[in-house]
Amino acid sequence: MSHFAAELIGTMILILLGDGVVAGVVLNRSKAQNAGWVVITLGWGLAVMVPAYLVGHVSGAYLNPAVTIGFAMAGKLPWSEVGGMIVAQMIGAFLGAVLVWLFYYPHWKVTDDAEAKRNVFCTSPAIRSPFFNFLSEVIGTFVLVFALLGFGAKGIVFADGLQTLVVGLLIVSIGMSLGGTTGYAINPARDLGPRLAHALLPIAGKGHSDWGYAWIPVVGPVVGALIAALSFVVLFQ
Amino acid sequence: MSHFAAELIGTMILILLGDGVVAGVVLNRSKAQNAGWVVITLGWGLAVMVPAYLVGHVSGAYLNPAVTIGFAMAGKLPWSEVGGMIVAQMIGAFLGAVLVWLFYYPHWKVTDDAEAKRNVFCTSPAIRSPFFNFLSEVIGTFVLVFALLGFGAKGIVFADGLQTLVVGLLIVSIGMSLGGTTGYAINPARDLGPRLAHALLPIAGKGHSDWGYAWIPVVGPVVGALIAALSFVVLFQ
Amino acid sequence: MSHFAAELIGTMILILLGDGVVAGVVLNRSKAQNAGWVVITLGWGLAVMVPAYLVGHVSGAYLNPAVTIGFAMAGKLPWSEVGGMIVAQMIGAFLGAVLVWLFYYPHWKVTDDAEAKRNVFCTSPAIRSPFFNFLSEVIGTFVLVFALLGFGAKGIVFADGLQTLVVGLLIVSIGMSLGGTTGYAINPARDLGPRLAHALLPIAGKGHSDWGYAWIPVVGPVVGALIAALSFVVLFQ
Amino acid sequence: MSHFAAELIGTMILILLGDGVVAGVVLNRSKAQNAGWVVITLGWGLAVMVPAYLVGHVSGAYLNPAVTIGFAMAGKLPWSEVGGMIVAQMIGAFLGAVLVWLFYYPHWKVTDDAEAKRNVFCTSPAIRSPFFNFLSEVIGTFVLVFALLGFGAKGIVFADGLQTLVVGLLIVSIGMSLGGTTGYAINPARDLGPRLAHALLPIAGKGHSDWGYAWIPVVGPVVGALIAALSFVVLFQ
Repeated sequence: MSHFAAELIGTMILILLGDGVVAGVVLNRSKAQNAGWVVITLGWGLAVMVPAYLVGHVSGAYLNPAVTIGFAMAGKLPWSEVGGMIVAQMIGAFLGAVLVWLFYYPHWKVTDDAEAKRNVFCTSPAIRSPFFNFLSEVIGTFVLVFALLGFGAKGIVFADGLQTLVVGLLIVSIGMSLGGTTGYAINPARDLGPRLAHALLPIAGKGHSDWGYAWIPVVGPVVGALIAALSFVVLFQ
Repeated sequence: MSHFAAELIGTMILILLGDGVVAGVVLNRSKAQNAGWVVITLGWGLAVMVPAYLVGHVSGAYLNPAVTIGFAMAGKLPWSEVGGMIVAQMIGAFLGAVLVWLFYYPHWKVTDDAEAKRNVFCTSPAIRSPFFNFLSEVIGTFVLVFALLGFGAKGIVFADGLQTLVVGLLIVSIGMSLGGTTGYAINPARDLGPRLAHALLPIAGKGHSDWGYAWIPVVGPVVGALIAALSFVVLFQ
Repeated sequence: MSHFAAELIGTMILILLGDGVVAGVVLNRSKAQNAGWVVITLGWGLAVMVPAYLVGHVSGAYLNPAVTIGFAMAGKLPWSEVGGMIVAQMIGAFLGAVLVWLFYYPHWKVTDDAEAKRNVFCTSPAIRSPFFNFLSEVIGTFVLVFALLGFGAKGIVFADGLQTLVVGLLIVSIGMSLGGTTGYAINPARDLGPRLAHALLPIAGKGHSDWGYAWIPVVGPVVGALIAALSFVVLFQ
Repeated sequence: MSHFAAELIGTMILILLGDGVVAGVVLNRSKAQNAGWVVITLGWGLAVMVPAYLVGHVSGAYLNPAVTIGFAMAGKLPWSEVGGMIVAQMIGAFLGAVLVWLFYYPHWKVTDDAEAKRNVFCTSPAIRSPFFNFLSEVIGTFVLVFALLGFGAKGIVFADGLQTLVVGLLIVSIGMSLGGTTGYAINPARDLGPRLAHALLPIAGKGHSDWGYAWIPVVGPVVGALIAALSFVVLFQ
């Protein structure tokens, strides 16, 4: 499998499982309806862990343009790989969102709340405040990328396969602790790909796709990743 | 222990624990009543993990006809093993359901909701829609079998015993993200064996066994497993 | 440290953490009040895991007379060890319950429900039915001891330290799936030691200690352990 | 990276994630609002685990003056290291609390409850009773430090990286079982640093910083750590 295919398939599964858990919790008549934040955050952690195991040994399982850029910035990934990976991640995220739409198909039309339906696909701020929403995405992604880089620092050793499990728990941690303000996109592909799917798919009773907010979960994570990469290089190398 | 006995005992424990957690959450006057989706999904993940540790080193702990067929299709299991294993899994699932009936015996007659009682044994759709219910079971089982095959791909290494833990987490992930529509049978034996037990056992105040739906959690998982096996062969080999 | 001291201290910590999580969830004005079954079951799993790590390498961390007897029956522990271990476990369980009483001291008098207070210390049936309550404890303990013996069977290999984590998850599984009927004592010391503490301590507004039920969480687990040991010997050896 | 920088950064991340999960659960209009005790306790366990992985190989990741003193007392850390580490931990905890304030900035002014806002930063007793609040912190920290020392005892072996995961689970266990009375500071820096931040920062609608209680989560943990160190030396060495 090529790196491109691995990132595409990995990100597709990431979004199928990640947007899937949101769909299960917010859509009407789902068996998981109202299962709450604990299920959202555990579900997203596992949604990262599963494809990370599957394609990690092929492409590194970046699954996230911000992580990809952060690793390139820190010298852990050739910059020549970055563009292709981001394209693959965006396509995969879009396709994953299409699968979620099909998977929960009968539930869209029985759910009235258009905002809830959009939240299945992409993030929205709890309180709209561009500067602080941006800051939330910067800080959340900083923790993500700083930790991912740190887990690969000299001196840390993981038993085979354990690091990927810990990465899943890291996502759970960020979700539980830093998810309350913006829903922790911390990944431009995770937000933009499904937002595009939301805009294009004939979802029953959907509202607007909130494009005015869309730049924050793209730019914020990239900025957070860059700060993390610089911090890592200064502190750990 | 023979492969047959291992699959029978393993699937019996799978259903005792898996249908057990549903019984605990839905039956009246259970101490676990209304513990919610987080307990259902964590409980089912552990219900797979425990017997997978116990009989994995004997028979591989398939515990699921769809997984068995998927692995045979991918060339990971001789087809000559498949028939016997499926018989063992069906018998084990039936016996596990009998144990759940006995375990929670005093709780059946204090629970009025006949549908809730059937849901302890076998799955039902949140919204009845054969095509999309079928699709849900196909996609859920695709993720299951594709990941299980992928975890055994060249290049992935797990510390001893860690893979089985990750398989348990994979089940939690599928439950949380892809369980909301049909209750994620993703295993023909898990659904058909207990449904048969529901039909045959003198459960207090039980209703019908919804045989009209029974083909979906049998055929859907098999189709999902076949697609997963083909995808795995194309992509990883 | 002697085996006696290890089992005593280990069981004391087991009950401090295990009865502690029940106290936190049921006592009035606790910050954990009404945290629900997910916290009870995760908390008890960790309550076993923590002392199992601490004293496992000294005494084996049986922490449970039924497990002790089951392992002796299966030939994994000399019978000469059994008596002393059970005495240590009973003393440890009693002392752990005393610690829970002190730890939550201000909360007893602000909690009116005497039955809730007793449930912190020892188990009670959801529906009183001696035969089925007994059966629940037999089946729950069967799963526990059969799995613990099975985890040590030839052919299973765990990375260093992983088995103890899995044992914690096994306890979570039994709690979630088989805890709804009797509260899963599955351990005579866990029930009898704290019940004695409940009877002897001057707990504010306590009711009776329900001695009529006390034999079930003692005899049931022992019977379940014996069946598990015999099954293990027949099936795995 | 120096030990000082490692402890400072590690404790900063600890408080960002740990106080962050409380902020998410208690502040108005947070997406995690009312997610409950299971999220608080899992979130705090992960909040310890993440920085423990990141800086454990540099400084040992004590992140806690009580643990630092306990390890020195047990002869596992030179006393000459203790002072600098505690200063680093206090600064890191203060900075982490500042980050939480900024991260959740729009949520402070929409939350009326001043006590809830203070609880994001520092602990408070469920029932104010200095002796028993002190005892709770002593016992909780005893379990923490005794277990941390015990995990390093001769005879225990962990696969690479597994011990840090188990430490995270230990924190979850203490939170679930021993957190109900005082909110388990079990760490002087975790309480005093953020309390100072609460006192100094211009948090919208904040109340007093409850300095009358502040000595308990400082002195209690130190006393618990000393008892744990002595117990460890007597029992395990």
